[in-house]
Amino acid sequence: MSKEITSRSEDYSQWYNDLVIKGGLADYSAVRGCMVIKPYGFTLWENMRDQLDKMFKDTGHVNAYFPLFVPKSLFEAEEKNAEGFAKECAIVTHYRLKNDPSKPGKLMVDPEAKLEEELVVRPTSEAIIWNTYKTWIQSYRDLPILVNQWANVVRWEMRTRLFLRTAEFLWQEGHTAHATAEEAVEETEKMLGVYAEFVENWMALPVIRGVKTPNERFAGALETYCIEALMQDGKALQAGTSHFLGQNFAKAFDVQFLNKENKQEYVWATSWGVSTRLIGALVMAHSDDEGLVLPPRIAPLQVVIVPIYKGEDQKAKVDEKVKELMYQLKLSGVRVKYDDSDNARPGWKFAEYEKKGVPVRIAIGARDVENNTAEIARRDTREKSTVTMDGLPVYIVNLLEEIQQAMYDRALQYRNEHITTVDTWDDFMKTLNEKGGFVSAHWDGTPETEEKIKELSKATIRCIPLDNKEAAGNCILTGKPSRQRVLFAQAY
Amino acid sequence: MSKEITSRSEDYSQWYNDLVIKGGLADYSAVRGCMVIKPYGFTLWENMRDQLDKMFKDTGHVNAYFPLFVPKSLFEAEEKNAEGFAKECAIVTHYRLKNDPSKPGKLMVDPEAKLEEELVVRPTSEAIIWNTYKTWIQSYRDLPILVNQWANVVRWEMRTRLFLRTAEFLWQEGHTAHATAEEAVEETEKMLGVYAEFVENWMALPVIRGVKTPNERFAGALETYCIEALMQDGKALQAGTSHFLGQNFAKAFDVQFLNKENKQEYVWATSWGVSTRLIGALVMAHSDDEGLVLPPRIAPLQVVIVPIYKGEDQKAKVDEKVKELMYQLKLSGVRVKYDDSDNARPGWKFAEYEKKGVPVRIAIGARDVENNTAEIARRDTREKSTVTMDGLPVYIVNLLEEIQQAMYDRALQYRNEHITTVDTWDDFMKTLNEKGGFVSAHWDGTPETEEKIKELSKATIRCIPLDNKEAAGNCILTGKPSRQRVLFAQAY
Repeated sequence: MSKEITSRSEDYSQWYNDLVIKGGLADYSAVRGCMVIKPYGFTLWENMRDQLDKMFKDTGHVNAYFPLFVPKSLFEAEEKNAEGFAKECAIVTHYRLKNDPSKPGKLMVDPEAKLEEELVVRPTSEAIIWNTYKTWIQSYRDLPILVNQWANVVRWEMRTRLFLRTAEFLWQEGHTAHATAEEAVEETEKMLGVYAEFVENWMALPVIRGVKTPNERFAGALETYCIEALMQDGKALQAGTSHFLGQNFAKAFDVQFLNKENKQEYVWATSWGVSTRLIGALVMAHSDDEGLVLPPRIAPLQVVIVPIYKGEDQKAKVDEKVKELMYQLKLSGVRVKYDDSDNARPGWKFAEYEKKGVPVRIAIGARDVENNTAEIARRDTREKSTVTMDGLPVYIVNLLEEIQQAMYDRALQYRNEHITTVDTWDDFMKTLNEKGGFVSAHWDGTPETEEKIKELSKATIRCIPLDNKEAAGNCILTGKPSRQRVLFAQAY
Repeated sequence: MSKEITSRSEDYSQWYNDLVIKGGLADYSAVRGCMVIKPYGFTLWENMRDQLDKMFKDTGHVNAYFPLFVPKSLFEAEEKNAEGFAKECAIVTHYRLKNDPSKPGKLMVDPEAKLEEELVVRPTSEAIIWNTYKTWIQSYRDLPILVNQWANVVRWEMRTRLFLRTAEFLWQEGHTAHATAEEAVEETEKMLGVYAEFVENWMALPVIRGVKTPNERFAGALETYCIEALMQDGKALQAGTSHFLGQNFAKAFDVQFLNKENKQEYVWATSWGVSTRLIGALVMAHSDDEGLVLPPRIAPLQVVIVPIYKGEDQKAKVDEKVKELMYQLKLSGVRVKYDDSDNARPGWKFAEYEKKGVPVRIAIGARDVENNTAEIARRDTREKSTVTMDGLPVYIVNLLEEIQQAMYDRALQYRNEHITTVDTWDDFMKTLNEKGGFVSAHWDGTPETEEKIKELSKATIRCIPLDNKEAAGNCILTGKPSRQRVLFAQAY
């Protein structure tokens, strides 16, 4: 079988693209920067979405849906937010096509169907949502509003990468409204916790919780909380953000409420989101040179069973064994497929399901039937073992949990080995160049120094960890005094 | 309490808007023709979507996601489809805003960020999807492709109505690819069946299954199957369509496959969709002058419990009874809420939940606690009865099913009473003007006559029912011979 997937050591970036495309997750489309999420990739997204949705609902949130378009005058109302997104917006200017008189069979934009006011395709929905909340909120009794939206958004990126950075992507955006700053901050932190729990427990990916520096904040936020994960090439990836928006949007859209003391006050806001970008993180954190490695809890397919036989007689015997096993596995809630298609050899199937990252493969041959055994292959370690069919369903269920935990442990060990504490500029640069990962260092706290470090090293401050300890030191670049270390990394 | 909802007899159209807005389903937005789907309305949509999604998956379909934008050159490739949608397309022409030099703080479209090729915001996705299928399909082994997409689409309607006709709406669109025409037709019919089953069994709304006349077909289809429902004002509403697209899109996008005989052939296609429009149908078919009436199977909330008490002592006793009841109801899978908020009187709450269409209301007061009873109110019939608390959970579960069936039966009876067979033009017009509903009549089979009838009566041919019997007759307008009756109606 030809080597379809570029190895990580050869070309990490090409390895990633190969995995996404040949693993069946997504594909390029005819639209610049937009991707097609293929059925296998979309099922993965559904599994992630459904779990997140459950966690949102368990924490008191409800879903709603707001328009795709934002009139320009609303879009520009909150200035910082508008400034942050203005340069990457798709703009609808017309609402009709007509036959092109100069080219039979072709269409052209009808110049007579020009909109009076241009519409921005939402890059994020604060503006349209806060303009709506204005009509929903009169008194403190209407608060809090705990709304989430699953939607597509568009940000016109110049350099795109499948899942990681696409012009259109799918995401959820929570937008909550509160009577007090304290409540809003509590919500912001709670949702960061939900994200961390999801990414760690479901995606098997450890994260560092922190806050962004002012430079790296969401446009329009007073504080941006984030979770940061580490990829196998030593680069960081922001896996989710939760913003405390203060009263910025309430003021921009004049959203006030009558408080318990019968006084008008501006409403406090949060927003928080994760996107299909998480799939990119998942791919880069766990996979190997043979293909995807997916954590069992969200894998579209958890177990594949491949029969090995010669002739119809053997096939019938294997089928019989598999039938009972399938029934038991499904009863235990395992997502399992029996691939007995006759258009490919077992070896080809093995490689195919390895490429697709199916956590467990079970091969059953004629001899296995005789011996009452099956061959089990773990995708994460690629270990094979022959086990008895007695109690196999329970064994598999436990194995799936074991794989989930093992994937997390490996990622955690890698991540922990890649947090390096440095005190000099030379060590800082050396660590970034030779080892990668997070670098814990002192910084003088100014945006100017942050910018300068970024210019010199391509590393940004990923976050100020929430569990940071105060400790005096000196900025690695300027030598000026610093109260605490922050985490730098080159990042996606 | 003030009469918030206009009655049907007073102004049917206003009644509908009142229900949608005051029932908490949706609201107008700042964007012309686009609506905000509020949490209560969105939960209703989620319940519908989840059930449909399950039915799609049970029939072998998988979900995927394709780009929001369609480059103009792809959009125009299938000419009939392009022609059908060209006049109602939102067009993205630019990808950036910039500061407006003449208006500080305002933004303007950056003329230097003009797209080389305009992008159409998808009004439907055949073009972008078939352009993708081209890369997925090589041989008969790649077929069938059974893909569905849940997405937002945009059709620039001039006259909009909440849910019924909005510029942006949510829907699902199935797009399947097959090796033979027979298989594609079978799929088209199968999905019509799924829609009919969903609308009848879950939305409690009887439908007539049929095919459209060529005039009313989807742009680019060889045959459009539909389900037609009847609203309380005697107008019909198309509740879902399933299209046999033949090889039109395969030819437009050059999608061929190597068949078993090793010959290249064009692929056969279907597409099928239902949208948030179904919510409009649901509202108009079942509701009354007090508010929404929602079928239990998809109602966001199936049961609401309202306590009636004076003082904390009584409240504590009621609470204790309700606690156990809530537990039992939830255990039975009932979506139930205990509204013990102290900011509204029971009477206000009763009216509120009637307006929202909650199928069953349980009121429990201090005397009920003593008598071990509860007062049950059905939303559909507005009947009240006092029942014993013993076995109440089972009683409620059964009652919900009874309500579901009763709603269907009432709608069916109304629908059946509103299918009128006529043989003359006078009777045709008289029926439409005085009674409404479906009118079964002979038509000479020409598009010209169909157009003329529409002009004169505002009635269109809703469908040629699938179970139609051939029966010779004469066209009600032209008197020319006809082989079968068709169903006319004025429609949404």
